[in-house]
Amino acid sequence: MPSLTTSEIYLPDGVFAASLTPMRADLSADHHALVQHCRWLLQSGADGIALLGTTGEANSLSVQERMELIEAVFEGGIPGNRLMVGTGCCALPDTLTLTRFAVEQGAGGILLLPPFYYKPVSDEGLYRYFSSLIEQVQDSRLRIYLYHFPKLSGVPISIDLTARLAESFPGIVVGMKDSSGDWSNMQALLERLPGFKLYAGTERYLLEVLKRGGAGCISATTNATAAWAAEVYRLWKAGEEVGAAQEKLTQARQALEVGGFIPLLKQLFARWQQNEGWRYMRPPQAPLPEAAITAVEAQLEALGLALERG
Amino acid sequence: MPSLTTSEIYLPDGVFAASLTPMRADLSADHHALVQHCRWLLQSGADGIALLGTTGEANSLSVQERMELIEAVFEGGIPGNRLMVGTGCCALPDTLTLTRFAVEQGAGGILLLPPFYYKPVSDEGLYRYFSSLIEQVQDSRLRIYLYHFPKLSGVPISIDLTARLAESFPGIVVGMKDSSGDWSNMQALLERLPGFKLYAGTERYLLEVLKRGGAGCISATTNATAAWAAEVYRLWKAGEEVGAAQEKLTQARQALEVGGFIPLLKQLFARWQQNEGWRYMRPPQAPLPEAAITAVEAQLEALGLALERG
Repeated sequence: MPSLTTSEIYLPDGVFAASLTPMRADLSADHHALVQHCRWLLQSGADGIALLGTTGEANSLSVQERMELIEAVFEGGIPGNRLMVGTGCCALPDTLTLTRFAVEQGAGGILLLPPFYYKPVSDEGLYRYFSSLIEQVQDSRLRIYLYHFPKLSGVPISIDLTARLAESFPGIVVGMKDSSGDWSNMQALLERLPGFKLYAGTERYLLEVLKRGGAGCISATTNATAAWAAEVYRLWKAGEEVGAAQEKLTQARQALEVGGFIPLLKQLFARWQQNEGWRYMRPPQAPLPEAAITAVEAQLEALGLALERG
Repeated sequence: MPSLTTSEIYLPDGVFAASLTPMRADLSADHHALVQHCRWLLQSGADGIALLGTTGEANSLSVQERMELIEAVFEGGIPGNRLMVGTGCCALPDTLTLTRFAVEQGAGGILLLPPFYYKPVSDEGLYRYFSSLIEQVQDSRLRIYLYHFPKLSGVPISIDLTARLAESFPGIVVGMKDSSGDWSNMQALLERLPGFKLYAGTERYLLEVLKRGGAGCISATTNATAAWAAEVYRLWKAGEEVGAAQEKLTQARQALEVGGFIPLLKQLFARWQQNEGWRYMRPPQAPLPEAAITAVEAQLEALGLALERG
């Protein structure tokens, strides 16, 4: 695969937080609070933000709402070379509208779900979908990161399809967020496609991915663990001892793996930032029992996470 | 559950065809051909049309495209009391826009998928979604048929949730298309909710559903088998011997169960009606090998189906 030089990739390697979307009481997206949260994540050490991913409740927002949100984040001053923007819908025209818009706004990368209603679908059908999108966007600034999240999409992006897309669209299909949780899949991708910008969908595999030439991680839980994940990345780049930092990070991740990242994280932030606005979420999300939040909070505190977040 | 009188239900019991959506070479919906196909289905004996269901590639069309299609079908003279219109999207605002529009156009019923990206979600989260929709549509003509298709949506609509919705919104949540293929689920629903308008998602269970007080069937394959399914319904209503007709219908259904209903049916219709336009389908759909179509066609012909359609 002809690989891009670093200067042609707009997004940094490292740690991306899949940002939550703060909402108002009427469940509209709170753009002001979102910009603040993005800033805070970058200040906490995140190298970038994955906007409108699963954790951002993207699929609970209309296309129009997503465009307004993207615009607001750019207007709020979050730099495009820190932003990977989710644009994948079920319907190609919607994905096209959002992708064009995000690229025109200056998004350094596009996080692209496969069309996720119909299943099973053939690799050929998915190839037609992705290639048709790329041909219609027709923009030299387009950088696609495939979003492989079979548990939610129900539509896996196979290694063969990934390779076919990367080879057919060099410099455009440049990477993947692999949220399969399947380490063997990530390993196989990194072996097959050297230089491919693979981000693990969990910070648990951050160090392993980096060691094998991948780009880093993008995860829901880095909304909470950004500083610790950034520390792992910093130590690894500096060639320093990083095992203990990764172990601490993995423990924090595990404490957060109780199911329902969106309500869990929103309810945690409501407590941490003493801001009840964080509790708003769109159905089908529903709040978790407060006892569950208390238990996670206590575990994180025992690890020293809440204290550091102060 | 307080049940509606027949006059308050706008849609007939019996056989619904989940209409295909004919497309043009540019993959836009061919409204004219769709209206013709709906007419042909009704003439073939279908009691109603499920528009913009899974088979209609609804989730590959944008909200705007779906509204234009609904409008065109009404303008084409297909009566609202024969139309169950699919409006369920992932994002509540989209579902709201489409549901309002379809009700205002005169749709006799709404076929409603759950929000199908996030999973697993709690019954409480789904209840919030559906109840919020109903409260916001606020239209006395709203009649909802829940669309239970766990293999595609990944989000089952449990019997408990169905009962809760039917009891909370009597006269509004009136029925279900159960495409689970799970006969025990259909049986349990019919026992728990007498009078609930249950349509099996396959004509294979048409007679069984009718015998237990259900409404009928709605299926992809009735695009091809409408006349035979209608015959089963007619015989059953007339109290005549119906076992042989159901058996023949079941055999036709089985011949069609080769995976990929959308390409299969479009490719069959292209042959039957000698109209190459039927071959257009949106990615991620992709054509099946012609040999597979030939095999199914031969099986149907052996059963006498193609000849009757002649």
